[in-house]
Parts: sequence; C-alpha cells; structure tokens
Amino acid sequence: MSEPSQTLDGWFCLHDLRKMDWAAWRRVPDEERRSIVQEFVDMVNTWKAVEEEETGSYALYTVVGHKADFIMVNLRDSMNDLDRIEQEFNKLRIADYTTQTYSYVSVVEQGNYTPPKDGSDPLDNPNMRARVYPVLPKWNHICFYPMDKKREGEDNWYSLPLEERVELMKAHGKTGRKYAGEIKQIISGSTGLDDWEWGVTLFAHDALQFKKLIYEMRFDEVSARYGKFGAFYVGNLLEPDQAQLFFDM
Amino acid sequence: MSEPSQTLDGWFCLHDLRKMDWAAWRRVPDEERRSIVQEFVDMVNTWKAVEEEETGSYALYTVVGHKADFIMVNLRDSMNDLDRIEQEFNKLRIADYTTQTYSYVSVVEQGNYTPPKDGSDPLDNPNMRARVYPVLPKWNHICFYPMDKKREGEDNWYSLPLEERVELMKAHGKTGRKYAGEIKQIISGSTGLDDWEWGVTLFAHDALQFKKLIYEMRFDEVSARYGKFGAFYVGNLLEPDQAQLFFDM
Amino acid sequence: MSEPSQTLDGWFCLHDLRKMDWAAWRRVPDEERRSIVQEFVDMVNTWKAVEEEETGSYALYTVVGHKADFIMVNLRDSMNDLDRIEQEFNKLRIADYTTQTYSYVSVVEQGNYTPPKDGSDPLDNPNMRARVYPVLPKWNHICFYPMDKKREGEDNWYSLPLEERVELMKAHGKTGRKYAGEIKQIISGSTGLDDWEWGVTLFAHDALQFKKLIYEMRFDEVSARYGKFGAFYVGNLLEPDQAQLFFDM
Amino acid sequence: MSEPSQTLDGWFCLHDLRKMDWAAWRRVPDEERRSIVQEFVDMVNTWKAVEEEETGSYALYTVVGHKADFIMVNLRDSMNDLDRIEQEFNKLRIADYTTQTYSYVSVVEQGNYTPPKDGSDPLDNPNMRARVYPVLPKWNHICFYPMDKKREGEDNWYSLPLEERVELMKAHGKTGRKYAGEIKQIISGSTGLDDWEWGVTLFAHDALQFKKLIYEMRFDEVSARYGKFGAFYVGNLLEPDQAQLFFDM
Amino acid sequence: MSEPSQTLDGWFCLHDLRKMDWAAWRRVPDEERRSIVQEFVDMVNTWKAVEEEETGSYALYTVVGHKADFIMVNLRDSMNDLDRIEQEFNKLRIADYTTQTYSYVSVVEQGNYTPPKDGSDPLDNPNMRARVYPVLPKWNHICFYPMDKKREGEDNWYSLPLEERVELMKAHGKTGRKYAGEIKQIISGSTGLDDWEWGVTLFAHDALQFKKLIYEMRFDEVSARYGKFGAFYVGNLLEPDQAQLFFDM
Repeated sequence: MSEPSQTLDGWFCLHDLRKMDWAAWRRVPDEERRSIVQEFVDMVNTWKAVEEEETGSYALYTVVGHKADFIMVNLRDSMNDLDRIEQEFNKLRIADYTTQTYSYVSVVEQGNYTPPKDGSDPLDNPNMRARVYPVLPKWNHICFYPMDKKREGEDNWYSLPLEERVELMKAHGKTGRKYAGEIKQIISGSTGLDDWEWGVTLFAHDALQFKKLIYEMRFDEVSARYGKFGAFYVGNLLEPDQAQLFFDM
Repeated sequence: MSEPSQTLDGWFCLHDLRKMDWAAWRRVPDEERRSIVQEFVDMVNTWKAVEEEETGSYALYTVVGHKADFIMVNLRDSMNDLDRIEQEFNKLRIADYTTQTYSYVSVVEQGNYTPPKDGSDPLDNPNMRARVYPVLPKWNHICFYPMDKKREGEDNWYSLPLEERVELMKAHGKTGRKYAGEIKQIISGSTGLDDWEWGVTLFAHDALQFKKLIYEMRFDEVSARYGKFGAFYVGNLLEPDQAQLFFDM
Repeated sequence: MSEPSQTLDGWFCLHDLRKMDWAAWRRVPDEERRSIVQEFVDMVNTWKAVEEEETGSYALYTVVGHKADFIMVNLRDSMNDLDRIEQEFNKLRIADYTTQTYSYVSVVEQGNYTPPKDGSDPLDNPNMRARVYPVLPKWNHICFYPMDKKREGEDNWYSLPLEERVELMKAHGKTGRKYAGEIKQIISGSTGLDDWEWGVTLFAHDALQFKKLIYEMRFDEVSARYGKFGAFYVGNLLEPDQAQLFFDM
Repeated sequence: MSEPSQTLDGWFCLHDLRKMDWAAWRRVPDEERRSIVQEFVDMVNTWKAVEEEETGSYALYTVVGHKADFIMVNLRDSMNDLDRIEQEFNKLRIADYTTQTYSYVSVVEQGNYTPPKDGSDPLDNPNMRARVYPVLPKWNHICFYPMDKKREGEDNWYSLPLEERVELMKAHGKTGRKYAGEIKQIISGSTGLDDWEWGVTLFAHDALQFKKLIYEMRFDEVSARYGKFGAFYVGNLLEPDQAQLFFDM
Repeated sequence: MSEPSQTLDGWFCLHDLRKMDWAAWRRVPDEERRSIVQEFVDMVNTWKAVEEEETGSYALYTVVGHKADFIMVNLRDSMNDLDRIEQEFNKLRIADYTTQTYSYVSVVEQGNYTPPKDGSDPLDNPNMRARVYPVLPKWNHICFYPMDKKREGEDNWYSLPLEERVELMKAHGKTGRKYAGEIKQIISGSTGLDDWEWGVTLFAHDALQFKKLIYEMRFDEVSARYGKFGAFYVGNLLEPDQAQLFFDM
C-alpha cells in the first residue's frame, strides 16, 4: 500500500569466499606453487586495471577463522561480468586447491533515495555517482555481512509507513556518520538476487571500529527492532605483492 | 472451513542445479572434455525438439555464486518424465563432474483460478493454456526461489477468508503487471511435492529488474505479512552453442 | 491434564532413502553391475515373500530430485526387524554406491482411537487390523513427509481439550475422504522414535493428486494453525523387474 | 529472582554415536575384520569390568536409520575420564571405519532435589545414590534425545516461580511412573556442557513403550508448553558377543 | 535512542577448534608422527613466550565429543596477529590431519563500563587492565560458548533503557561472583566481528562448576528472558608436555 522509498542502483557486486585445502597445497612443489600464485596475482592485476579505467572496482582480503581463507569482491556493470569473473577464477590452477564456502550477489545501491525534482539524471551528480559506482578502499580491514529487515508479528519493517522508515534510517545514518573517516561503508541490495535483502561491506583502518560501530548501531530502533543479521566475515588486506608470502608453505 | 481458491494445473516441472568439480574436470584431456560437453549439448537439443513439438519446455542458465554453476529447468507431462530427464543427465559422462546441490519438483499453475461458469474446459482458452503449458523464454537472466505463505500467530494466510486472499493477490498482481515486458514469471505449486509451497521462476532481459520487482513487491501486504522466502538462485542464459566455451578450461 | 486420545499401534516402519554415486557406479564393469543389481532385486523379492505371508509389507520407489534416488519402506513386527533389514541392505554390494540421505523410524497407527466398549480386541476387527497392518499399495507414485503438531504461543495443539482435537481431526478426515480411491494414506506415529511426531506416506495413481489433497488440507484449521511440516519426498514406482533398467548406465 | 530448584549430581556421561563406512569396511580382509572387531569387544569388556567394580557404567546399542549405526554410552567420575574413553576408541582400528555423527556430554542428575534437612549427605541414602550413580540396564532397546525448557514469549520456564515448576514436574513424574518396569529413565543435565539443557536416555523391553510414554507426556503442561526437543536416536541392544555378527559382511 | 553502555576493549581473541582425522594420522609412521607433534609443541611454546612477555595469552585444551578434538585460544594485539597465528598453524604439518570445525573472532571486553570521571586512562588502573588483557588460566577445564541478547517481540534487550540493563547485569554478576575462585570468566565481544554478539570462555578446576553456574544463571532475568545461546564446547587442559601422549596412536 505504502509507496516504497526508491533506490538508486549502480554496479553489480560479487563477494566470493574461498577456503584453501592447505594439505593438498603443501604437496605441490615450491616452484609450481609460486607459478600458480603468480597466475592468480596476474588476474588480480587485471582487476586493478579495470579499477583504474573506472569500469569496476575490487577488494582482496584474507578472512580470519574457519569460514574462509580469503575473500574477493568485484564490482562490475552486469551479472554476466560477475559470472565471467567467477568462472575465470575457477579456471585458474589455484582454484583446484580452494572450496567456495560462500558468495553473495548484489547491486550497490543508494537506498531511501529521492529523485531530483528538476528531472535531471542523478548520476550527473558526481557525489551520487561515487556512492553507487564506488572505488573500494584498500584499507587494512574488511567486514562483510548480509542482513534482512524483520517481518515478524509487531516488528514488520515492510508494513511501516514510508515516513517512519525514513525517520528510522535517518537516525541510523547519524550513528554511522560518527565513524566517518574511520569506516567506509558500501551498501548493496540483494532482494531478488540472493538470500538476504542487503549486503553490508565495511572497510576500516582499525578492526576495533567494526565492533564499536555495529554495537552502537544495534541500539538504534531500526536495528534493535527490525534488523536480522547473517554471518559476519572479517579479515585483513591482502596486497597482491603479499600473495606469495600468504600462500607460501 | 473457508473454500480454498482453486488452481488450474499444467506441466510438471523439475529445477535441477549442478555445481562443477572444476579440479577433476581440469584433469580430463581437452578432446575428451569437448566430447563430453557435446554429449550434454546433444541432450539439450532433444529438449529443444520437445519444446518445438509443444510437449514440454526447458531452460538452461548458469548460476552465479557458490550455490551452483548451472541450472536446468524442464517442463513435462508427468512426474515419470521428470525422473527420466534427471536420470538421463545422471548417466551422461558430464554428470560425474557435478554435484546436484539443489532441485525442485512442482507443477505449473494458475492460482486463485475461477472455473468458467459455462462449464467449458478452461484449457480450450489458448490464453489459459499458455499460462500452465508455457514456453520458457530464452531471455538473458533467470531468477528462481521457493516460497511459503506464513502460518505464524496473527499472520496466518490459510486462516484468511477467501475474499481477503483474492484481494491481496490482486494488489500483488498489479505490482507484477508494472513489469510486463521486463519480466516473465512462471508460478509453480509444490504443496505436497517439495519442501516449499511454491516455486517462482522469473526471466528478465536486465537482471536489475529482478531486484526492482521483488523489492517493490515486498511492500505489498501479501509479501510483507504473509511471504516466507527460500534461497534465491540467479544466473545468465547458457545457449547450447556457448556450452563448449563455458566448460572450456 | 486432558486425557490424550489413544492410538492403536501396528507394524514398525522404516523409510530408508538412498542416493547413488553414479560416477563410481559407472566405473563398475557392465556385467558386475548387473550382478550387483540382481543381488538387490533378490533381496526385494524376499520382502515380497514376507508381504505374501502377511508378516510385513514393503514399498520401493524412485525419488525425484537431489534428496535421494530411491526409497525403500518396510513394515515389520519389531524394531529389531527394521535394524536387520537396514543392515542387510548395507551389506549388499550395491550399498557401497549409495549414501543414506535420510531415514525414518515409526509405527503404523490409527490415531484418535476409541477402544471398543465391549472389551473385545480391536484387532479382531479386520477393518481395524488392515489399517495398522496394511499392505502397502504398488500404485504409481509415493509421497512421504514427516510432521509435527505445533506448540507455539496461542497455537498449541497439545493444550487443546480432547473434544476440540477430535473435532478438528474429523473435519480433516472429511477432506481426506474426498480423495478415496485416488490416494491411499498410511499414518505412522514417531513420537519418541524419530525427530518428528508423525510420518505420512501417500500413494497415488496420479501425482497431481498429492498436490491437490495437501493444498486443500492446508486450509483445514488443524493444518493451518497446528500443522508443521518437514521435507517432502516424491517419486515413482520402481518395480523389481525395472531395476536393471533404472540402474543401467 | 526465584530460587532455582537444586540438583544432585552424579557421574559424568558421554554419548558417542558412530556411523560405519560399510564400503571401506567391506574391503578389509575377513580375518583382519574379525581381529579389529575383537579389539573393540575387548575394550567393551573393560567397560564391563568398570561396571562390575561400580566405578562407572556403560551401554552399547545399535542405532536404526541414517543417523548412526551404533551408540556407546559411558558414565564415569570426571570429564577427563570421558575424554580418555573417547580417545581410546578413536585409537582402535575400528574407528578408522566410522564417522562420529553425534555425541553428548552431560552429568547424571536428580533434578528438583531438596537437600535433607538434617544436613546428612544425600549420597549416604542408597536410593538417591543409585539414581545419580546408576547401572545402565541392558534392556532390549534404547532411546536418547536432548531437550530444553522453552524461553519463548509467554512460555518461559525459567521465569516461573519455583512452586509452579515443582508442581508441573510432579504431574510429569506421575505420567512417568505409570511406565515403571516398562521403561527405565536416566536424566542427565547438560546446561553449560552441551548444546541442550538435558539429555534423556530411556531403556525399554518393548520399543513401542517409548512411543506410548513420550506421546502421553507431550500432553503434560510441562511438555506441551515448555518442552523443546532435539533429535531422537533409537536402537537395539548390541551384546558384545553379537558384535562379530553385527560387523560381519 | 538510549545511550548504550560503553565497553572497554582489550586484546583481540581467536578461538580455533580442530578435529583430527585419526585414520589418516594412524598411517603416518611413528617417528614422523612424533616429529610432527614436536613441531606443534614448539609453536605452542612460542605462545608461552608471548604470554611471559605479557604481549598476549593462550589456552590449549582438548574438546570432548564430536565437535572437535582440541581448541586453541590466542589473545593478541590485532586482527593481523590472529590471522598470522591461524595461518602459522595451517602451515604446520599437523594441520594436514585436522579439519577446522569452528572458530571465533572477538575482542576481550569489560562491558557496561563507565569511563573514569577524572578523565584518566582506565588502563592505568591495573585491575581494569588485567580484565581486558588477561592471562588465561591453565586450570583443568575449559567451556566456550557464543551468545546473543534477544530481540524478539516483547523480549528485546536493545530496546530496554540503560538503567534497566545495568540493573539486570548487576544481578547476573552477583550470581557469577558466588563462583569466584571456582570459575574464571573471560567475556569477549564480537558484534561486527563474528556471528554472535559475545563469546564466553570459562575455566574451572572442576567441570561440574560449569553446569552449576550456568544452570543457576539461567534463572536470572537477563538469561531467562534475554539470553540466546550457541553451541557449548567443553574440554580438558592439554599441557604441551602431554601432547605426545594425546596424539600417540
């Protein structure tokens, strides 16, 4: 019944998480292992080139704990591009020593978006453009988690009037802005594309800021009453020139 | 107590999702790999022939992310046909390099259906017939997800009076019709056949439309209060003549 | 507090679902494969003999989709018999090419049963006897699913007075009887024996009837408010003399 | 706020469930297989000796269905003892052919226990002592399941006043006592030790009694409103001198 | 709306749980096995050295039951350190015989913390410092579990006013203090870092105290109404000089 707030959509986005089979990897001779890693680094460098041409962006981080060993995030123009990137990795030799433990398909979005009244193209606004076609920062740490808005009994986000949703999101945004400079946040929508409604990808210089921000936000009514969270994946920047070290046995 | 709305039922439907073991696949010599793919393409071509004879229909798409690498959808006259198709694939050599990560058994249906008052056969109506014996479009993208109607406390779809259910579905249909031409939707019922009550299979030229449609629909009361969603699977058209490329290492 | 309705119990029942490792199976030489299948058919024939002696009954069906490739159902006098049957299969050579994806332990029952007032043995009544010591039909299709009665907030089946439960079950039975001749239903109780409270095994000539019956029943108050359903397994009759064909590569 | 009822604690308890890899087991030469089983039987005999010395107790049963092939239960003085028993099994050759599908760590307890007013040691009372340091019966059948008391909205066991909890448990105990002689029940508490709050281990001469007892109990308010149940594992007595037969291929 | 209580944060913390593949391990020649274990012990000794330098702390315990065979806990200054420790283990030869069944990323915290009014650095207070940069005790037993505070309908921790939360936590703390000397408790926060909001790691001389403490706490309103618990992992101290014995076949 209520008019949903609109979203402004940008790049398609694939999160791809991989766990190494270290035992099998160890059995590969040193030199071959190095050549396999170089092949992977070469591919990452093509992502870098795409980023420089501003036709996409990427992130490569380790993942701490049992859920994965590393995460690759790629932003591109279409779902076909995401597919191509995923299959390109699958066809690298390094893929044979990995299991794909999780992935996420979404589209970078600017939510609760109000279209300009003068009918101009919002993407002509460089600020708006940068939000939905962002360059992923290469900060020290990453945090990724998917989330839903609840639809349970009295706590039903999608039954709230638009004004109330806008108000709750505004208060939430205020909490977020306290962490400007500390945390860079990419929101991508995945309703109709993956199992949760949004993916949240955060970057920080100091990993403790993830805990501080998300803990503080949990007391915002929008999270306290309406937030439903999936698994959290955290890790550290993996610069391509550290890859040989990371994969060395 | 309340008279359920009737459904008009058409073809049986099998969604079959497969993930490749790329590491094992890489170890197959190039020529053998090509011959194995050709064998698979030959089978897809028999599905094509069935579609041309109007005794069934099919879809073949890649799947982006960790859930699968490709999805095969087949519509046929009986559950025995579905079984045969599944086992026929299992006995192809390519099947040895796949895991069946998910599947779905259902029947294409026209829900909330009112039988013609003149007692005529609804399937004599070509429009009705096309809805339950559809030709699956070969558009760029697919989106598949199963769903239930909730039966939780106050939010119990099956306890609502028929008129209210019809009203809510009508509003929902209105949202859907805004996307006519953009999205083609196949609804199949699976109560008593698989773990969820319905399967929804969408086709689009532009994958972003899946997100727009399903996000907008989530605000319809029927989804907001009564919708319960399973996993979402999205991917890209895999034309048989692209198969050699897709499976090439 | 309320006196539970009594149940009349008959045979113990084991559902055993198996998925083939078709890749490993393919590597077995043709002749050996045929001999392995024959060994399996021989065992099924001993089940047939037991059925003819009226000391048990059995069903053998394929399962469509990823959950399994075939299902074996056996009714016998005791849990020791079920164990013996399961282990007998495990020790056949064909078992080495299967994974046991699911199973279910229960006892065929006549629920909401009222003991005869004249103190006679209800099992002297051939009608009653046939309900709890049934011969499983060899109809075209099978549908198996486990279920619970809900105990959630206001929707708590076990807190309802006996009369109300009897009333609700009676209405439900009425829906079921509309499908007499179309669907044969075996109810088995598994409280204290397996993870759900009941197993429902349906047989039909036409698989569409499963969908029609269970969809219609979902509007009965007993399902709408109190039903909680597990996974659904559906498939097609696998006659022993079709086994060589089914398992042929 | 309310004073919790006390518990009297006895032996630590480990349930260890194992599934055989029958395919790998078949490939072991007959004689070696027999020697491996004998090694296992020898270990079971040391458990028997411990039971005779009254410093512990044990149970060995098959498990019907896909969840496991056999279950070992051991009661001992400390968690270190449980660990030692588990690792001792892991180091037997038979362990190489098993997967540990489930396990449970708990402490045998007498719940809702009132300490003697005269300050005497309750364990000087042989009746009390036997409840928490029991000899596990070697009856025909076992049934094991873990459970919680609910804490959901209005149905919150832990918020009830002590008197009400005592009252509800008393009514429940009355249902249980109807089955005296038919069923022997061991309750072990696992709050802080494993994923559920209690483990229930039942022994019966006739497996049907498990169904009758637990079904009847489900109507007791304490189960109907407050019971939350995990998986149920049922099986048959496996006497050490039947082990060669059970594991024979 | 309500001001969240602050937390004082200390070391980053990684729980890493591993299950042995005993069958593969058995196939390693005795001498090689001993050398592999020694390599592992050497790494644990470097953790010991870090603990002595007060730049981190560690715990090494067995885990009873199917969930794992041993658990390693490490406290360090940064998430990069945790990553390095995890990967260092992965690159030991012993890792090839393990599966990482679970892990947990968190930060040791002092919750509901009130910053000193005089503006001094709380970490100048040695008592406070010891709480968030603790030396993990080497007591006989460990118990680890993750937990959330509920946000369900009326039971929403994050919607409570600060004063009420402080009050409820104070009562909870009182229950905990009864076990001083018996149980040492480390609380680590993981909102934004892992799937639950907190990790609780307990150490005890006597494992029964875990059961007593956590059972008693479950009646505190903060647990009864607001506590939501993950899996529990319990085990016994594994001194490095017992490692050869523990891993001996």
